[in-house]
Amino acid sequence: MNSFGTIFRLTSFGESHGPTIGGVIDGCPPGIEIDFDFVQCELDRRKPGQSAITTSRKEDDKVEFLSGIYEGKTTGTPIGFIIRNNNPHSDDYDNLKDVFRPSHADYTYTMKYDRRDHRGGGRTSARETIARVVGGSIAKLALKSLNIEITAYTSQAGTIKLETTYNKLNLSRKNIESTPIRCPDTEIAEKMIDLIEEVKSQGDTIGGVISCICKGVPVGLGEPVFGKLHAALGNAMLSINSVKGFEFGMGFDGVQHRGSEVNDVFYIKEDGKIGTKTNYSGGIQGGISNGEDIYFRVAFKPIATLLKEQHTVDAHGNEILITAHGRHDPCVLPRAVPIVEAMAAMTLLDYYLLNLTHKK
Amino acid sequence: MNSFGTIFRLTSFGESHGPTIGGVIDGCPPGIEIDFDFVQCELDRRKPGQSAITTSRKEDDKVEFLSGIYEGKTTGTPIGFIIRNNNPHSDDYDNLKDVFRPSHADYTYTMKYDRRDHRGGGRTSARETIARVVGGSIAKLALKSLNIEITAYTSQAGTIKLETTYNKLNLSRKNIESTPIRCPDTEIAEKMIDLIEEVKSQGDTIGGVISCICKGVPVGLGEPVFGKLHAALGNAMLSINSVKGFEFGMGFDGVQHRGSEVNDVFYIKEDGKIGTKTNYSGGIQGGISNGEDIYFRVAFKPIATLLKEQHTVDAHGNEILITAHGRHDPCVLPRAVPIVEAMAAMTLLDYYLLNLTHKK
Amino acid sequence: MNSFGTIFRLTSFGESHGPTIGGVIDGCPPGIEIDFDFVQCELDRRKPGQSAITTSRKEDDKVEFLSGIYEGKTTGTPIGFIIRNNNPHSDDYDNLKDVFRPSHADYTYTMKYDRRDHRGGGRTSARETIARVVGGSIAKLALKSLNIEITAYTSQAGTIKLETTYNKLNLSRKNIESTPIRCPDTEIAEKMIDLIEEVKSQGDTIGGVISCICKGVPVGLGEPVFGKLHAALGNAMLSINSVKGFEFGMGFDGVQHRGSEVNDVFYIKEDGKIGTKTNYSGGIQGGISNGEDIYFRVAFKPIATLLKEQHTVDAHGNEILITAHGRHDPCVLPRAVPIVEAMAAMTLLDYYLLNLTHKK
Amino acid sequence: MNSFGTIFRLTSFGESHGPTIGGVIDGCPPGIEIDFDFVQCELDRRKPGQSAITTSRKEDDKVEFLSGIYEGKTTGTPIGFIIRNNNPHSDDYDNLKDVFRPSHADYTYTMKYDRRDHRGGGRTSARETIARVVGGSIAKLALKSLNIEITAYTSQAGTIKLETTYNKLNLSRKNIESTPIRCPDTEIAEKMIDLIEEVKSQGDTIGGVISCICKGVPVGLGEPVFGKLHAALGNAMLSINSVKGFEFGMGFDGVQHRGSEVNDVFYIKEDGKIGTKTNYSGGIQGGISNGEDIYFRVAFKPIATLLKEQHTVDAHGNEILITAHGRHDPCVLPRAVPIVEAMAAMTLLDYYLLNLTHKK
Repeated sequence: MNSFGTIFRLTSFGESHGPTIGGVIDGCPPGIEIDFDFVQCELDRRKPGQSAITTSRKEDDKVEFLSGIYEGKTTGTPIGFIIRNNNPHSDDYDNLKDVFRPSHADYTYTMKYDRRDHRGGGRTSARETIARVVGGSIAKLALKSLNIEITAYTSQAGTIKLETTYNKLNLSRKNIESTPIRCPDTEIAEKMIDLIEEVKSQGDTIGGVISCICKGVPVGLGEPVFGKLHAALGNAMLSINSVKGFEFGMGFDGVQHRGSEVNDVFYIKEDGKIGTKTNYSGGIQGGISNGEDIYFRVAFKPIATLLKEQHTVDAHGNEILITAHGRHDPCVLPRAVPIVEAMAAMTLLDYYLLNLTHKK
Repeated sequence: MNSFGTIFRLTSFGESHGPTIGGVIDGCPPGIEIDFDFVQCELDRRKPGQSAITTSRKEDDKVEFLSGIYEGKTTGTPIGFIIRNNNPHSDDYDNLKDVFRPSHADYTYTMKYDRRDHRGGGRTSARETIARVVGGSIAKLALKSLNIEITAYTSQAGTIKLETTYNKLNLSRKNIESTPIRCPDTEIAEKMIDLIEEVKSQGDTIGGVISCICKGVPVGLGEPVFGKLHAALGNAMLSINSVKGFEFGMGFDGVQHRGSEVNDVFYIKEDGKIGTKTNYSGGIQGGISNGEDIYFRVAFKPIATLLKEQHTVDAHGNEILITAHGRHDPCVLPRAVPIVEAMAAMTLLDYYLLNLTHKK
Repeated sequence: MNSFGTIFRLTSFGESHGPTIGGVIDGCPPGIEIDFDFVQCELDRRKPGQSAITTSRKEDDKVEFLSGIYEGKTTGTPIGFIIRNNNPHSDDYDNLKDVFRPSHADYTYTMKYDRRDHRGGGRTSARETIARVVGGSIAKLALKSLNIEITAYTSQAGTIKLETTYNKLNLSRKNIESTPIRCPDTEIAEKMIDLIEEVKSQGDTIGGVISCICKGVPVGLGEPVFGKLHAALGNAMLSINSVKGFEFGMGFDGVQHRGSEVNDVFYIKEDGKIGTKTNYSGGIQGGISNGEDIYFRVAFKPIATLLKEQHTVDAHGNEILITAHGRHDPCVLPRAVPIVEAMAAMTLLDYYLLNLTHKK
Repeated sequence: MNSFGTIFRLTSFGESHGPTIGGVIDGCPPGIEIDFDFVQCELDRRKPGQSAITTSRKEDDKVEFLSGIYEGKTTGTPIGFIIRNNNPHSDDYDNLKDVFRPSHADYTYTMKYDRRDHRGGGRTSARETIARVVGGSIAKLALKSLNIEITAYTSQAGTIKLETTYNKLNLSRKNIESTPIRCPDTEIAEKMIDLIEEVKSQGDTIGGVISCICKGVPVGLGEPVFGKLHAALGNAMLSINSVKGFEFGMGFDGVQHRGSEVNDVFYIKEDGKIGTKTNYSGGIQGGISNGEDIYFRVAFKPIATLLKEQHTVDAHGNEILITAHGRHDPCVLPRAVPIVEAMAAMTLLDYYLLNLTHKK
């Protein structure tokens, strides 16, 4: 269960304070030209120490490809890769060896496996998502030649919401990357950053929402009834650390409306093709993409690691007090943007490849 | 992709106006005593014609088991089953043969498969969920011996919300079944019913939210990192017709809170076991159940079939007007309650069985 | 584990003396025209009572399709089907309820599942292969439009061997079907039939070998390294009741030869394409089809049910004597020919569809 | 399709002349103590340069574990590992860049993927089996605590056969490892070695058979009908480079016998348990282990790389002559013995874990 996807398939491995994080990408189509700078750039968007609102930890996160690429192109054989960990601060975690931190997975892992590598969260650390970003960047390169483009951005941090609908925003990468919170509205972005800095100064953390838009998805992706495209996207997003909710198209808000208000009426577009006048469906009908933009929202809880004293228990049944040390993120949002995109990219490529099998 | 689950696995088949809906349950543990009345009772909760707020269509939905049960108990071999369709009104759909109804899957199926069985929605009809309810009822019988109990109810219809948290409600089946909307607060239930009747009288439809609570789930279910228990539940729920969103624990609401407000503090319970004082995590931490109640919410859009005139296009590229005839549900909610429970039951049993493999 | 295949996927169910045998075919490409007479004809080749050398039991084995076919063509949705059992002789098995018959699966099923449906062998009965023949006949119809043709025949019964290599035989269906043993050399066929009749007259049984030839398979099918085409074919054949061995190309005989004797030299064919002068590889190199004929051999043990007294034990730990009653096959061969073809057809179609995913 | 297994699952990657061979083992039970010396010893049995009858190439094949092991024990999280390639002779292959070597996979890979890494065979090199031996050695350590033991040996090289049945041989590892051909009968071993040296001196190669015995397998492993234990073993063996056939129990030889000669009669053993007097079934009945020894035979063709001139064609459509250079094995057998054991070990552990799910 450390594999994701049916045809395009990422298998990930690695603990926070082990020698490496790594993975294997199987089923990647042959002949994809690998832009190594692009892959590294995606990893850099995820890595810590980018800005004042992320942790100041230094992690290089340089990817090393071990197979499956020859003369700069994918060969169709599995792509192995590793990213070295450099962990000078393993000792920071010595005091947590037998402690079950609140709202972390220390307790559940220990109960399930009867042991755990506690250093830096071990397998439960968000360092695991590095492998996803590598997989996603390869998927993005494959999708690029299909003109499928995926863009995520921060649309809510705590109570600060970006209310503007996505098609009225400047979603160029340049604009989104221009603020450290990766919110395309610079005014709202400032407010979000202020909030996060305030929360950080209190040793506390805050949650938020990431929105994601997929453009250029052809009609026909999705495998009903148990492989609906939105169910696959939801599954992908819910597998990311700290995610508590997923909605697409009109989402939870749609329940208040009447069918006559939110049905998407078909019409003939200028180019003679069929389109819908509105897109409450979020680009997916009956679990299959309909050619309109796919958009969805992902809710992230506040990070559980606080620089504040908390009550908890240890593995020996003692009630204790703990305070985290070290350098931690006050908010998962800015670094999670490329992870959301990566999971969406792998899902869409996988479903694109699956759809190729529906031929006589 | 018409199979659901890894060990306990439902494969479903059948179209709305074909001879049957059916399925195969593979991987069911042997020795489960089948209470046939219970299975039929679950189907009756899903079937149309139950009340004034569901469609008045008559469908018997009697299940016929074909294999895998001997002397009243499961044998460990696959359980095949069918439910006969009795469709006197296939002709109701003749005028829809080449029409792409708004916010239905007519267009996407036709584009993906280059054809479709249009009668009654064919494979995209919610009659497909009958197979899920059969699978879920078998799963519930297996879970019962493990003291795992699953209860769903309507918590929102249109703008009418039940704000009370679940642990202050009477969630006995008797109470939930006492109103046709399956909302445990009878006062709110009345308002919901009024709303749905009003909407129905206008030939319109309305959406809503179903909440689901799973009690007695042991610690340890969930297969990180790509088989997290909540991701599996989300995937299950998003595979149900009309679902647009899923959240668990604090969900979307949690993003506004600070870590210090919503971290679940561990403590030693009176029985000496470890518990959490609050349960914002929704019973799952790091993708693994922690022994607390699992709870989640599922958003359903308003049903797309309206008894009102709508613009759309047909397969020949003509812009046309359509009006649905026949008997249709104004709201999916009351009949979706057993479907949500069924998908949750199959997911939990599957993950319970998977967890048995983590032994030396 | 009652499902076979990755994209084109058969799920089978049913016991010998339950109401039906059935199955679900998922992932069948849309638009395949179903020749119902052909499907029934394939079932008739498998059914008992065809000739003096098969059991005289009467089973109609009429298939009833329940979904996935509309206006005579597949729709891309799952194809459910059932075949009614008509079992007037369930009582024949009453005396076997707690008996573990030698070289049957009574003991292993009882130990694994802690129970079993003993009537007529239950799930272990070769009646289960009916579902395979239905699945295979649909696959054959899909392969036909790709000009892929699969032909199996009996090449050994007991010690009577057909030594002629396949490309010197008349492998037309007419010729193969002209003898009840389905051996294309009528002289050898006579000897085989004589042997089987002799064995039958003694209440005994005999084994044999079925050879299978696949023509027209395009270059490129097979998914190294763990989805090699011949490994998939081997897995398919070894899943058939009574099979004890599988070899392809030069097989076991090849181990005696030197590389220089059996390497298949490439050359340019008259049509300008690349071919091999010999075909010791059996049409597969490195797990991928190379465009030459694929051929393999499948070993079937003698059927375990004897009309002779045998020692054994029962479920209560008593050593007892048993003698089978009823009508049984003296040799599995003639009825297994369509089953071998069916499994080959499903495997090749599945791998054809999988290979479509290796596109940029 | 570079993954093997359902619960215990190996994903492998790496090309012969890339930086590493590697893999990920998912689903390994937690708490298995890793004997690193044992793992390396298994790799040493596979590596080249062991003796005069294997290639004289020097490859260190030191395994480096990257995750999933903490304080010497498995944690239940995925075990990543790599083995560095040290390839001073990549240039040996420059002349083969566009050549399709006879009975190699150069042609099929190029046609399937439209490219290939030709250096040293790339992904088709038997260096890929290193990952299998690592996976198998971890599986063996897990099986050891279950008292399941797997032993393979060379039973035929060219025409030199070891006719003695396995239970009359000394199958201690010490005895098998005492000859470089890994045949437990030293007299026959000498003849095999003589033959291989003769073949080698001629620049030629020869095939052979490896036998494998699995002792201590409990009753109940195997998942009928499409996950029969022997079908899984056959699939595993046929996935090994150069394998052309698989048989278990009486195998191909059994087809000549009558049911009354080869039925395995049940009886009550001295310890009160049920056993069979003979074991023609090879320890598996109806696809499920019956507690007797499992034994099977695997046919390996002669290696395709000859130090002799051969005709072939290149990618440009020219007919050419080639002669291999460098250091190559004259016979795959001695080095394939640990690979056969590794694949058997992973299969049995996977099926052991799967069988744990058949509980109420």
